[in-house]
Amino acid sequence: MAVEKRATAVWKGNLLEGSGTVSGESGAFGEIGVSWPKRAEQGAESTSPEELIGAAHAACYSMALSHGLAQGGTPPQELRVTATVGFQPGEGITGIHLDVHGTVAGLDQAAFAEAAAGAAAGCPVSKALASVEITHTATLA
Amino acid sequence: MAVEKRATAVWKGNLLEGSGTVSGESGAFGEIGVSWPKRAEQGAESTSPEELIGAAHAACYSMALSHGLAQGGTPPQELRVTATVGFQPGEGITGIHLDVHGTVAGLDQAAFAEAAAGAAAGCPVSKALASVEITHTATLA
Repeated sequence: MAVEKRATAVWKGNLLEGSGTVSGESGAFGEIGVSWPKRAEQGAESTSPEELIGAAHAACYSMALSHGLAQGGTPPQELRVTATVGFQPGEGITGIHLDVHGTVAGLDQAAFAEAAAGAAAGCPVSKALASVEITHTATLA
Repeated sequence: MAVEKRATAVWKGNLLEGSGTVSGESGAFGEIGVSWPKRAEQGAESTSPEELIGAAHAACYSMALSHGLAQGGTPPQELRVTATVGFQPGEGITGIHLDVHGTVAGLDQAAFAEAAAGAAAGCPVSKALASVEITHTATLA
């Protein structure tokens, strides 16, 4: 039986002038505002579907990479992952880039790069987003 | 030139005993904790990649549906969308269900259902998640 996680959005009005809120049932984050102009604006101080996809992907990728590294006998001290999600209004999500900086004792850059590639290909969110181009870069501290 | 949205995850330790945080560059939500046990637990008071995917999808779907309805001459007074994301540890994301309840003056259930189906198929997050089974239900208030 799969675990189910729920989130809710409430939207009022049309796309261009209306606005909405989004929240998760866990209560870990409260109601966050969303709007189309902010979604389509670089650097907006408002979340967006793409920022939330990025947050999901960065979290999932860091978990998968930590697991791969631990299975290889070198669990990470720290992984810092930034997901950048491209959005072209009228076209959609254009690509996702994952950039990881890791602190992992006893591991060289080549082995870290291999583990990072495995996580980028195999993490559950990468698989769900398989129709999007996903690239990654991995740097060992 | 696509708009880019960024989010960051920081993970410490292995998968089962470690934990992390996730945040978005917009600042709309602060650092939120994530962990594997909470991700795999029903009803956890902690967010997860799947809850964040659900939040992204619910927000995107509500925007797309509001746009479709407005283009048809009946912008919604309110759309309330719940996204439920299934996650099976070891398998991945098993499916997403979108449930929308709408208040739309001058529209009948059949026309609402048609608009809802169009948004479920066409919203950018649905397209990005095309490898996942996406179902939906639509009810007019």
